[in-house]
Amino acid sequence: MVGAMSATQLGPLPSVNRQFKLAARPVGLPKESDFSLADSPMPAPADGQALVKTAYLSVDPYMRGRITGIRTYADPVNIGDVMQGGTVGQVVASKAPGFATGDFVTGFWGWQEFAAADAKTLTKLDPKLAPVSTALGVLGMPGMTAYFGFLEICKPQPGETVLVSGGAGAVGSLVGQIAKTKGCRAVGIAGTDDKVEWMTKELGFDAAFNYKSTSDYTAKLKELCPKGIDCYFDNVGGAITDAVFPLMNVYGRISICGQISQYNLDKPEPGPRLLSLVLVKQLKVEGFIVFRWQNRYAEGIQQMAAWLGEGKLKYREEIVNGFDNTVKAFIGMLQGDNTGKMLVKI
Amino acid sequence: MVGAMSATQLGPLPSVNRQFKLAARPVGLPKESDFSLADSPMPAPADGQALVKTAYLSVDPYMRGRITGIRTYADPVNIGDVMQGGTVGQVVASKAPGFATGDFVTGFWGWQEFAAADAKTLTKLDPKLAPVSTALGVLGMPGMTAYFGFLEICKPQPGETVLVSGGAGAVGSLVGQIAKTKGCRAVGIAGTDDKVEWMTKELGFDAAFNYKSTSDYTAKLKELCPKGIDCYFDNVGGAITDAVFPLMNVYGRISICGQISQYNLDKPEPGPRLLSLVLVKQLKVEGFIVFRWQNRYAEGIQQMAAWLGEGKLKYREEIVNGFDNTVKAFIGMLQGDNTGKMLVKI
Repeated sequence: MVGAMSATQLGPLPSVNRQFKLAARPVGLPKESDFSLADSPMPAPADGQALVKTAYLSVDPYMRGRITGIRTYADPVNIGDVMQGGTVGQVVASKAPGFATGDFVTGFWGWQEFAAADAKTLTKLDPKLAPVSTALGVLGMPGMTAYFGFLEICKPQPGETVLVSGGAGAVGSLVGQIAKTKGCRAVGIAGTDDKVEWMTKELGFDAAFNYKSTSDYTAKLKELCPKGIDCYFDNVGGAITDAVFPLMNVYGRISICGQISQYNLDKPEPGPRLLSLVLVKQLKVEGFIVFRWQNRYAEGIQQMAAWLGEGKLKYREEIVNGFDNTVKAFIGMLQGDNTGKMLVKI
Repeated sequence: MVGAMSATQLGPLPSVNRQFKLAARPVGLPKESDFSLADSPMPAPADGQALVKTAYLSVDPYMRGRITGIRTYADPVNIGDVMQGGTVGQVVASKAPGFATGDFVTGFWGWQEFAAADAKTLTKLDPKLAPVSTALGVLGMPGMTAYFGFLEICKPQPGETVLVSGGAGAVGSLVGQIAKTKGCRAVGIAGTDDKVEWMTKELGFDAAFNYKSTSDYTAKLKELCPKGIDCYFDNVGGAITDAVFPLMNVYGRISICGQISQYNLDKPEPGPRLLSLVLVKQLKVEGFIVFRWQNRYAEGIQQMAAWLGEGKLKYREEIVNGFDNTVKAFIGMLQGDNTGKMLVKI
């Protein structure tokens, strides 16, 4: 009954499905012309599939790596492929047991308005528990990235200093707040004064600074981290990270979540060698892809939802309206336009 | 009785104690003039001390860091100080319970012919169990460095490929052999053909190469590590390590034991940024100072001694004769003159 009612609300289906496909391998910062908007026939769900209508789609830093053509931990997006990405939507037709028309689901069907998705790639969402968009943010991949990538690798202890680069992003903003729940001093780095104010005034970071208006990262970091840095959660890399390593405390832990400063370089840039510091300070530096903890997401979601309920976690969504604006949103996110999680609402 | 007999063999004491003191902070590769040979009065043991006569003294790569004047994990050697270092010797007079004339001991009294050492800084050796010089090598600090620094950080699994830079050094030569006991493929890197031959023909490494006669490290590493590299035990850093990172397998572990290629640089040299590789390959990179496992040395010594007894571990000592040649030995060791453990015999 609910399914039938929702189907009515969803309205008639269009005859075509609009998709963003990769048109060219970006050189440097992606351009709009690196993607093409194409019409394809409306898909029909096969047995075991649901036809889903996209409500929100996610633009995330990791996507820059997927379009380089280099296989890393995942298959790359090839020229002509629909762009990959996390999505939230509603079932509009179902040949999959357990999925009914009107159900909200999250999956990974990419930058398109509709998709026939295998049931096993979909997770049902309860819109009464949390806004469904959070499945792409605080209760989704970015939230799990912050939760596991910080706690499992940094193992923060009360009283320690935790530094987060990209501190106002979808992941970094959560890491700083999780650090506070663990009794740490949380210090954030971001690229606008508004982001700095958001971190310190709303999210409870103890300190933060705008790297774009700071000429001497070392001096600023020493000022804001007077006891040194025990945990560094790095989304950014490059010159900021170069300044952090010498200020790490002995036995410091560095979680490498992203290196967004490096993603759009035409060719790799050299930097100071850091391994002598890793040696004398006995640092542990570990990179991760969040999927390694996929079998523990239930635990992460439960804890993050509990902290949300207790008011210990706040999040912000930077919502761009309109499927047509997806590529703009992606490029803007790579340049730091977003505070919190960048989403496209269809 | 034993003590009395040994004391007789030790002969009369000279009136002066010769010491090598730091004369200048080295710039680049240390020079002989950076140290001065000085006579000081023969020390007298206070209560709780033993007067020890040096039999062997150790020259090790870490010493280069101690003379830079920068405090790292240990106090630096200051100008005018007797040079620090591990030592083996014999008690010639004792005011310390448990230490008798003639006892062989190991300690850290540095580059001098005699010392009045606190009993708590001395460990008695049994010359019947192993040659006393091994307390500075396979059963001493270098052995513990190999045992804990490799096993605890790399956690090697059977069938994995283990690469060791500085593979013919005091530590690296042991790491490769420990890797073999764990069922791994062991591959070594060194700077002479003789060292390569020693690793592969005598120590049981599966493969090795001479980096000084290899122009393309990447091609050579791919050839010798056809399944990629799971564990990298790094004594060297620099261009060799730059070539290793891209060939690491997912979830690879890198133990940073030394960076000897960097120690004698006038100013830090830049290199390729490695953290993007740490990220996509989910590497764990950890630096260590062996003292963190000091309370477990008994376990390490017992296991290393057992492997020695079973013929699973071989070691070589490069012995330079004469206290006067200590600085020459140190400088030679920094340039890779040694195969295995470099020692000075007094």
